[in-house]
Amino acid sequence: MSIFLDERLSSLKAYVPGEQPKPGEFIKLNTNEFPYPPAPDVAQAAFDAVGGMHLYCDMNCTCLKAEFEKVFGYGGNNVLFTNGSDEALYLCFLAFCGKNRGAAFADITYGFYSVYADLCGLEKKIIPLDNDFSVVPSDYYGCDKTIFIANPNAPTGKKLSVEEVEGIVKNNNGIVVIDEAYADFSGSTCALLTEKYKNLVVVGTFSKSRGMAGARLGYVIADCLLIEDLNKVVFSINPYNVNSLTQSVGTAVLKNNDYYAECVDEICKTRDDFTNRIISLGFEAIPSYTNFVFAKHPEYSGEYIASKLRENGVLIRHFSNARINDYVRISIGTPEQMDSVVSALKKIIGGLK
Amino acid sequence: MSIFLDERLSSLKAYVPGEQPKPGEFIKLNTNEFPYPPAPDVAQAAFDAVGGMHLYCDMNCTCLKAEFEKVFGYGGNNVLFTNGSDEALYLCFLAFCGKNRGAAFADITYGFYSVYADLCGLEKKIIPLDNDFSVVPSDYYGCDKTIFIANPNAPTGKKLSVEEVEGIVKNNNGIVVIDEAYADFSGSTCALLTEKYKNLVVVGTFSKSRGMAGARLGYVIADCLLIEDLNKVVFSINPYNVNSLTQSVGTAVLKNNDYYAECVDEICKTRDDFTNRIISLGFEAIPSYTNFVFAKHPEYSGEYIASKLRENGVLIRHFSNARINDYVRISIGTPEQMDSVVSALKKIIGGLK
Repeated sequence: MSIFLDERLSSLKAYVPGEQPKPGEFIKLNTNEFPYPPAPDVAQAAFDAVGGMHLYCDMNCTCLKAEFEKVFGYGGNNVLFTNGSDEALYLCFLAFCGKNRGAAFADITYGFYSVYADLCGLEKKIIPLDNDFSVVPSDYYGCDKTIFIANPNAPTGKKLSVEEVEGIVKNNNGIVVIDEAYADFSGSTCALLTEKYKNLVVVGTFSKSRGMAGARLGYVIADCLLIEDLNKVVFSINPYNVNSLTQSVGTAVLKNNDYYAECVDEICKTRDDFTNRIISLGFEAIPSYTNFVFAKHPEYSGEYIASKLRENGVLIRHFSNARINDYVRISIGTPEQMDSVVSALKKIIGGLK
Repeated sequence: MSIFLDERLSSLKAYVPGEQPKPGEFIKLNTNEFPYPPAPDVAQAAFDAVGGMHLYCDMNCTCLKAEFEKVFGYGGNNVLFTNGSDEALYLCFLAFCGKNRGAAFADITYGFYSVYADLCGLEKKIIPLDNDFSVVPSDYYGCDKTIFIANPNAPTGKKLSVEEVEGIVKNNNGIVVIDEAYADFSGSTCALLTEKYKNLVVVGTFSKSRGMAGARLGYVIADCLLIEDLNKVVFSINPYNVNSLTQSVGTAVLKNNDYYAECVDEICKTRDDFTNRIISLGFEAIPSYTNFVFAKHPEYSGEYIASKLRENGVLIRHFSNARINDYVRISIGTPEQMDSVVSALKKIIGGLK
């Protein structure tokens, strides 16, 4: 740290992303990435986009938005694209929290909410999940802060129903941000509620269910006035936030939506199968609505399991927060990758019995 | 605007980027883009990167940084890559300005400095250029604010020498940010000064001289402690800020550095030739160290020239600030494009005489 860093930032604890090893070094199940290759014609879209990249990219993401509307049913003034959904969340913190409002979110949830709140110098209201790690909707009713809820939640994998989210939205006068990074694996989305409620922001990403984690594409669906607000912030930070290569690739991905939907189905099947298999190994696994499983073993610590899996060539995520210290979060890869995880777990658990 | 937008932002005036028309609609000379195609093997790099884009991108931009070091002579802990140089500038405002410090910059310069200062709620010290639009180095000596200087400056196209910049840096205890977006067209860079001065940040971009405006790639060269500060902010906003497609494309562009250097030479020749031709049409043109020319005509207003050129299929930039209202900024395209501009200007000026 230099002597020049703003003092407000000098004490800030940055987000700690999951480890990104060299490709091929591990079976990588630590950052909930999509395990399948892109649809066949997506690479050509990237190739073609290079021919026009000397020009600034389309700030309105016109082609991407048109294709998005075909798949998601929302476009025009109700959609904004971002450099990954992290940027979308940051924009919401900038636009809708403010000095006197602050932000409310769960104690166990996506770690970036707290970082953004600190970065923006906001008051935080931390609302604990209940004992079984559920978000209790009524805890969020009549909140005086801007609310951020990951639904499904990470790293628990649990979800609120659309009706429960609606209860929160209609029992608040302020903004409610629903982070749907994992919604495609859950069978439901709250996007439809944005037509009814002018205080709801739905954030999503192409990282998890559309294989674009590295290419960075997030989106916001909301009432047109909220999109206008967020756009104003984009135009005050980085109007060309979504580059032309990503726009082209995202458009091609959406044109191949059936392929990605099939992959998501396959991931959900693999997840449910994997959950059953580790339960039969003695794990307690929370039924997951995401592309990961959050589980603990009654005899072995989360840290131990994560470190032993690493020795066996499998990278998963362990968080050191006290409440979830016993758990591990295992991303769902291909069936073959999950077979390897089960074999390794048998070895680890068997080896110590 | 919604009722939810933070009041600090509600009065904010966002940056107004140059118009981005549909490709082919105009001879587009309004946003200082690179007029030549990419080097032949760059598109393949984008194609290949799609195969790995389901994984999060490399936060350290390892391959890109290695190639950057070969070309620029700086790498490791002295370099940071960003989602365009706008993001680099924003990070500098966040990291190095702070509530009690604020920012100082010229009255006529890149418009985003003022927007960032407002967005961050900073006190601004606006330092006027002198009568011939020069930055006066001593005006910046002993400044109590963090200094931002575009060098060469936009939209004037004038530059300070490395010695003049050094004078500013060594006569300040605080951070000096030198924005070198156009430095490749000027024949000099202040990057070497970062080895000597721990309060100097040099920002650059691949948009102007490397044909990547749409793909978004900026960089910072500075003392390792300043890079550490900026990295901390990146990790508090968007650790995966530079996507994998852009990283691959940027690496390929750097591997073809000779091609881009030749293009830059060609652009400089075209610029000098174009400058002479419009002077012979009666324009007053400031000798330019960039890929654009800032010029005015004694008889026709800047607004008139821009609007008439538009009618003739040529898009250039006119700014409405009082001090530069007479001027137009014309980006340098291919020789053929500039022939068209000269023909159109002859028609416009001739037509009214």
